[in-house]
Amino acid sequence: MRFKKELENIKTYEAGKPIELIMRDYGIDEKEIVKLASNENPFGASPKVTALIARLAGKIHRYPDDSYYALKTALAEKYKVERENIIIGSGSDQIFEFITHALLDRGDVVLQNKITFAMYAIYSAQSGAVTITTDSERHDLKAFEKLLAKNPKLIYLCTPCNPYGDALDKDDVFAFLDAVSAQTLVAIDAAYMEYASFKNTRKLIEPKELIERFPNAIYTGTFSKAYGLGGMRVGYAIARPDIIEALHKVRAPFNITTLSLAAAVEALGDQAFVRKSAEHNFKEMARYEAFAHEVGVNYEPSYTNFITLLFPEGRSAAEAASALLKRGMIVRDLKSYNLNAIRVTIGLTNENDRFFELFRDYWR
Amino acid sequence: MRFKKELENIKTYEAGKPIELIMRDYGIDEKEIVKLASNENPFGASPKVTALIARLAGKIHRYPDDSYYALKTALAEKYKVERENIIIGSGSDQIFEFITHALLDRGDVVLQNKITFAMYAIYSAQSGAVTITTDSERHDLKAFEKLLAKNPKLIYLCTPCNPYGDALDKDDVFAFLDAVSAQTLVAIDAAYMEYASFKNTRKLIEPKELIERFPNAIYTGTFSKAYGLGGMRVGYAIARPDIIEALHKVRAPFNITTLSLAAAVEALGDQAFVRKSAEHNFKEMARYEAFAHEVGVNYEPSYTNFITLLFPEGRSAAEAASALLKRGMIVRDLKSYNLNAIRVTIGLTNENDRFFELFRDYWR
Repeated sequence: MRFKKELENIKTYEAGKPIELIMRDYGIDEKEIVKLASNENPFGASPKVTALIARLAGKIHRYPDDSYYALKTALAEKYKVERENIIIGSGSDQIFEFITHALLDRGDVVLQNKITFAMYAIYSAQSGAVTITTDSERHDLKAFEKLLAKNPKLIYLCTPCNPYGDALDKDDVFAFLDAVSAQTLVAIDAAYMEYASFKNTRKLIEPKELIERFPNAIYTGTFSKAYGLGGMRVGYAIARPDIIEALHKVRAPFNITTLSLAAAVEALGDQAFVRKSAEHNFKEMARYEAFAHEVGVNYEPSYTNFITLLFPEGRSAAEAASALLKRGMIVRDLKSYNLNAIRVTIGLTNENDRFFELFRDYWR
Repeated sequence: MRFKKELENIKTYEAGKPIELIMRDYGIDEKEIVKLASNENPFGASPKVTALIARLAGKIHRYPDDSYYALKTALAEKYKVERENIIIGSGSDQIFEFITHALLDRGDVVLQNKITFAMYAIYSAQSGAVTITTDSERHDLKAFEKLLAKNPKLIYLCTPCNPYGDALDKDDVFAFLDAVSAQTLVAIDAAYMEYASFKNTRKLIEPKELIERFPNAIYTGTFSKAYGLGGMRVGYAIARPDIIEALHKVRAPFNITTLSLAAAVEALGDQAFVRKSAEHNFKEMARYEAFAHEVGVNYEPSYTNFITLLFPEGRSAAEAASALLKRGMIVRDLKSYNLNAIRVTIGLTNENDRFFELFRDYWR
């Protein structure tokens, strides 16, 4: 049988290595493994959420409320929008899938940054759309503007952006949106926004203001990062109702679990946990920056919960990642992004200490 | 902006009403609500699984092992196939999405039964494929054979089938597959197979034998029914490696949750729970059949964990479902399948007693 020809050109996503795999492949005990590879919240989830999960274990045979009433209501309150402005995804990742399936046809043009979250281009390739990228590695809206003449049907802006951690100012994003055709959908991937807006309020994009001013914008957020629910797979998008309605047509029913739904609602209610996480994150980030100066490695100032260390010529990031791995320290080698760099999630204080120790050992 | 024209013709899936919604809409207390609408296992999940969920609540910030190594290994052992023969989905439902995105182009033909699981046609419509259906309401392979001349790219066989509960004999399925072109993918949706094979071994289709004989067949199973994990969203497919590889190209990473992965592995290990569930199911099914005779309602002998009650002319199933709902009894009105019937999940003994009592009250 013949599968679609587009599949031939698709490389599959390389996920951060899970702890189980390192235990299996290197025979290292779980207690000795530190995972700083997938931008998970080192505090875990809010204790209120983990307590709730334990209480709800007896309900896992029940399908979730497929209207996600409770979660949409809580998000609508938080962001001062209506339930009709919201769709729920299995991570914000799945929102990009919805956009792909609802919008993109073979030959359509998608514009994105040269270096950005890998899944955008993979989804676009699945639909046969053509991805064009800016020349610049960091998000540069002038570089995007130059490419508007290519008539993209979809533009991805990732702010703050994975894997560099750079973030755009809201005013610049809005000025850019003024220059974009109303026929182009602009997806603002704000997976790390809780961190960026904590560090610098100029980075904060409020979805309400965004969609009121720009009917062709869609804001995506996630519970996987600051809320500490990476394993629960819950994300959301906020946009005008006509966009949300179109995306709902390609959403499968029950696309998140019963426990994920409950966890997300509970997590939204514990904003103190999010603040504590962001506070810890940037305190520890300062230690990483000092460490980078100390050992002589470059980095990009980061608005996220990770820092990307750029290796000097002649030193291989892939080799460093591999050496760290053998000692139970999992970080993300960015070779698949064509970067000689590693991305390190900001961990607990003792986890970060361990990273500094192992990295120093390797580096000298 | 212009979404794909296919979306205009898509009606969204009507899910079974969740308990929360009935509490909200009718002001009925949770304790007084009985839900027999979504073919969930009335025993819940295995106690081993619920205990595990509670123990793992502290790990929900961790992404799952995206290779699903442990689950594929356990499934490979159970079905005596290789890990390369297996793909994991968010319910077997998501496997149908993978098939759609990997295989179907605008204008392709998909063949399915006249009355069958609603999502097949919805997915096909999303891709612009044309669904053709048999004339017969119950699965009739002769009716399928007649339509092979239409050159379908994909055929859905649902055995046992939702919403009638009828099941095909393995020998008949294999004889049919002999007549199908090797260029046509045949999906065998076996979501309720644990029940069917318990009732009658002639219904049992072993995926290993299936894919060894038919390189164009794909078997799908789920943890949502007999395993009692409806809310965890885990399903799987078994096929030749070339098919599995193509489907992996359209699978997003982390498509099930960390807890779902662990729950499915643990559930597979408790086959006694599955047997107990099936045993209870058919003991109670006999009571439903006797009840149907008593009140004078038709039914189709069912190989699943639900029974579909076919209303006589002049009595409205939709009205009955609505009357039951107001008293806290949630069953599934099959109006959306163009049937004057209700589908009732076999519940716990006391839940079934309650159904008989409320139905008698309404019926007289």
